[in-house]
Amino acid sequence: MKVQGRAWRTIEAAQGGAAVAIIDQTRLPFRFEVLTLRTADEVARAISTMQVRGAPLIGAAGAWGLALAARADASTAALESAARALIATRPTAINLRRVVEDTLRLTLAAPSEARAEAARRAAQAVCDDEVDRSRRIGEHGHALLRKLQAEKQGRLDVLTHCNAGWLATVDYGTALAPLYLAHDAGLPLHVWVDETRPRNQGASLTAWELGQHGVPHTLIVDNAGGLLMRQRKVDACIVGTDRVTVNGDVCNKVGTYLKALAAFDNDVPFYVAAPESSIDWTMTKGDQVPIEERAAEEVTHLTGVDAEGLLRTVRVTPEGTGVSNPGFDVTPARLVTGLITERGVCPASRDGLTGLFPERRGG
Amino acid sequence: MKVQGRAWRTIEAAQGGAAVAIIDQTRLPFRFEVLTLRTADEVARAISTMQVRGAPLIGAAGAWGLALAARADASTAALESAARALIATRPTAINLRRVVEDTLRLTLAAPSEARAEAARRAAQAVCDDEVDRSRRIGEHGHALLRKLQAEKQGRLDVLTHCNAGWLATVDYGTALAPLYLAHDAGLPLHVWVDETRPRNQGASLTAWELGQHGVPHTLIVDNAGGLLMRQRKVDACIVGTDRVTVNGDVCNKVGTYLKALAAFDNDVPFYVAAPESSIDWTMTKGDQVPIEERAAEEVTHLTGVDAEGLLRTVRVTPEGTGVSNPGFDVTPARLVTGLITERGVCPASRDGLTGLFPERRGG
Repeated sequence: MKVQGRAWRTIEAAQGGAAVAIIDQTRLPFRFEVLTLRTADEVARAISTMQVRGAPLIGAAGAWGLALAARADASTAALESAARALIATRPTAINLRRVVEDTLRLTLAAPSEARAEAARRAAQAVCDDEVDRSRRIGEHGHALLRKLQAEKQGRLDVLTHCNAGWLATVDYGTALAPLYLAHDAGLPLHVWVDETRPRNQGASLTAWELGQHGVPHTLIVDNAGGLLMRQRKVDACIVGTDRVTVNGDVCNKVGTYLKALAAFDNDVPFYVAAPESSIDWTMTKGDQVPIEERAAEEVTHLTGVDAEGLLRTVRVTPEGTGVSNPGFDVTPARLVTGLITERGVCPASRDGLTGLFPERRGG
Repeated sequence: MKVQGRAWRTIEAAQGGAAVAIIDQTRLPFRFEVLTLRTADEVARAISTMQVRGAPLIGAAGAWGLALAARADASTAALESAARALIATRPTAINLRRVVEDTLRLTLAAPSEARAEAARRAAQAVCDDEVDRSRRIGEHGHALLRKLQAEKQGRLDVLTHCNAGWLATVDYGTALAPLYLAHDAGLPLHVWVDETRPRNQGASLTAWELGQHGVPHTLIVDNAGGLLMRQRKVDACIVGTDRVTVNGDVCNKVGTYLKALAAFDNDVPFYVAAPESSIDWTMTKGDQVPIEERAAEEVTHLTGVDAEGLLRTVRVTPEGTGVSNPGFDVTPARLVTGLITERGVCPASRDGLTGLFPERRGG
């Protein structure tokens, strides 16, 4: 998608494959800084400090980390060690582990002198495949939006929560992919962007990327979406997901459940963009998903720019206040209108999912 | 309630009635500063800059403003002018207008030389009456909590949104009054405090006042309450209200509706503390309540203290991002378990309200 008028991916080969360029997402929306990473260690650090974040992007970064490791030392021992270090940066990121292990397998299958090139190609393929998956989600979602807009006439208002945009993937995004494709195709569109406390990914990432690409949008606090739905100012919700269980329950950024309740209460369609990699075929329902408790500082402290443009962190709560900070919640399948996958849109249910993924029917 | 171990009211006579002392609420939770106001002008400024806020407290401040005006010049013209200026500070605050007009009437009824004393007594009576109303709401709510706790055994977990505490009234609060009375009576109690974006009244005021009085509490972001209810970690919700319509719909701080939906979805009782002054007998349903759109800066900027303890304001959004900032939402009566008034608890309905307020039956 575009930044300052130029097309970007969140991660791209640099220096003929000797390095990889990323956008430092910890500096957004205040600074747009591109970092060039030259070693697997530098990539591991970028993942663990969340300079790159979002499951699909983390996976792509892991693959590139291994490709850089293979240029430095293509021995099996060195590559296995690099893979372990990369996987250890985000131990709960299932996608990262899968992608790094796949890339390692492809690399080790090549003879020693060809491993660097094999790893580079594998990493590039991971990225291209990721873009292709996002675009397919975008196309299926775009068709949905087009139908909703035809029924409504006039501008289509879509609400989203957190950031499931191109910054979380390699390009297009998951929840935002349909919006980018619809906007680029000329559909009159406006996006309500939930701030998404406590990390403010909506205010700092979604608002930024929509703004850079030129998609009309308005920022709201997380509390406002229910009112807007009651006022008939929201035609559809689209969010991403961290994990969909086999029954169609959706684990996503905390607060998603509240928006789904409001959508249901007001007959607003509530869609979840769910790439195949987010479907957990081993879990039968959402209550089984462990909910990560995150640092209190995410709630008590905020970073922004002061009047002089300097980045500053301030505490916004009384000193010593106790905090609970669960990162995710579970939206029951009964509140979800449909799941948008690479293979099409399906009901949020076991039958819906296995209809699109028949090879999982036995699972 | 207590601050640093000492009992306080939010507004108290000072210097034998020649002045009035308030807590500067714009400095909380970072500074606890008591201001002494000596003139009606100073009181008007304190109201308009939100050094005092909350409908009941604003009303009490307005009465004290008039009392100070009467000391300076007890002529009818001067008093009427002071009343107009005080009312104009918050034109939508119905309670302020009512209290100031009542105080003016009582004052003008006295002979010239007795007006200052009449106004002082009227202002003191407004405060004492306000405390009495809050305490009665507290007693009715306390009985409810005691019943819930007896059914549950163990600690009672109550969620609240925004600040309807003693800081918004003269003492006790509305939604928090039952919690203070229950805590003081030894009921094992813990409060989930919604941050309440964008103005963060939960994080900065509710957390502060509960902490000062010693009530166990935990701060959460507004997004987290739905998850906690699904996890059975909330036994009841209690919120305040800005306006209850005749059918029992509740207008309150934006985000209240989302919590009410989650409570309903999880069979958690959802109570609204509604002093008689918040019941609007002229409006038949919530959709008629105008929703105030507030300044974008409330969303884009935040104030806190930096590592050196200096108060700083930072922008947390991309430059130029468009914002919508509705201040309130409407929770339909079907989601409200009961209204807690000075006269007792009633269903959120016309029959419920006129049962407690039979004198309104014709209205």
